[in-house]
Amino acid sequence: MEIVVLRLGHRLSRDKRVSTHVALVARAFGAKEIIFANIYEKEIEERVKRVCEIFGGKFQVNSTEKPRELVLEWRKKGGVVVHLTMYGVPLLEKVNELREEKKIMVVVGAEKVPGWVYEVSDYNISVTNQPHSEIAALAVFLDRLFDGREIYFKYPNAKVKILPSEKGKKVIAI
Amino acid sequence: MEIVVLRLGHRLSRDKRVSTHVALVARAFGAKEIIFANIYEKEIEERVKRVCEIFGGKFQVNSTEKPRELVLEWRKKGGVVVHLTMYGVPLLEKVNELREEKKIMVVVGAEKVPGWVYEVSDYNISVTNQPHSEIAALAVFLDRLFDGREIYFKYPNAKVKILPSEKGKKVIAI
Repeated sequence: MEIVVLRLGHRLSRDKRVSTHVALVARAFGAKEIIFANIYEKEIEERVKRVCEIFGGKFQVNSTEKPRELVLEWRKKGGVVVHLTMYGVPLLEKVNELREEKKIMVVVGAEKVPGWVYEVSDYNISVTNQPHSEIAALAVFLDRLFDGREIYFKYPNAKVKILPSEKGKKVIAI
Repeated sequence: MEIVVLRLGHRLSRDKRVSTHVALVARAFGAKEIIFANIYEKEIEERVKRVCEIFGGKFQVNSTEKPRELVLEWRKKGGVVVHLTMYGVPLLEKVNELREEKKIMVVVGAEKVPGWVYEVSDYNISVTNQPHSEIAALAVFLDRLFDGREIYFKYPNAKVKILPSEKGKKVIAI
């Protein structure tokens, strides 16, 4: 399954660390790319690139000035668009249906999301109907979509590998 | 089950929004309290209080200057301590065991976590062995611990309720 994350509504420096977390979550839970709408943050891209150099994989960081067109284009090519929002339908009601899809664009916003996003998305999905965090919503969504199998994902060209351990840190160079 | 979240390693203003997300995730996924170590951020507490006023519940925000003593005290009283770390044992290997517990303190750090945390925790648990986000790790951990039942949690004295919907926003005053 091909997953792309579209991040809307990043508001300059105050959201930089939140957006970095969104990007790293996208990578660690199986997306191949994150696209930032209306913003280009070199710092975020560099942070994510450093992670890829060490931990492997080909995760891409990109940006767009036309998120609406990007979403419409994705749908035209047969992909589905899933917008994560506290107002949406509970994830567990739709996750089996979504597992049948081949290409999913996951849209995550910050506090205010423009109305068109609700309209053009194929699914508006909630991860609880309480306010919390787009980082959390994305992680739980992808964890459920892959049913926990993200821990088996391979990251080609990694320089290190972590060996799960009860205490302390076990890292091997590979 | 009683869940308390201990947040370590917040580094002043750059982490303020990340810590706010950690707090809101703790609330939305069933914890009763978050405790910040070595920091008191009025802004975070106020943001969380505003959410509680509107969406209900009795979630508490507290702080401690002695996180290690707090952890040891928790264990002495029969609670278990779960530290979320990319170096730990995969969540799905331990989640059934953890569901038997009555009191869990979940410890989440920022980038650097002091060594004592690995030692004094009953469990060091990983949510993937890739670097991502403590917000994501906490959310996936609690979602799996409660097996998705967090969407049925009641929040007493809420002023509004969200009705899950396919398009747009449906909010009712209660």
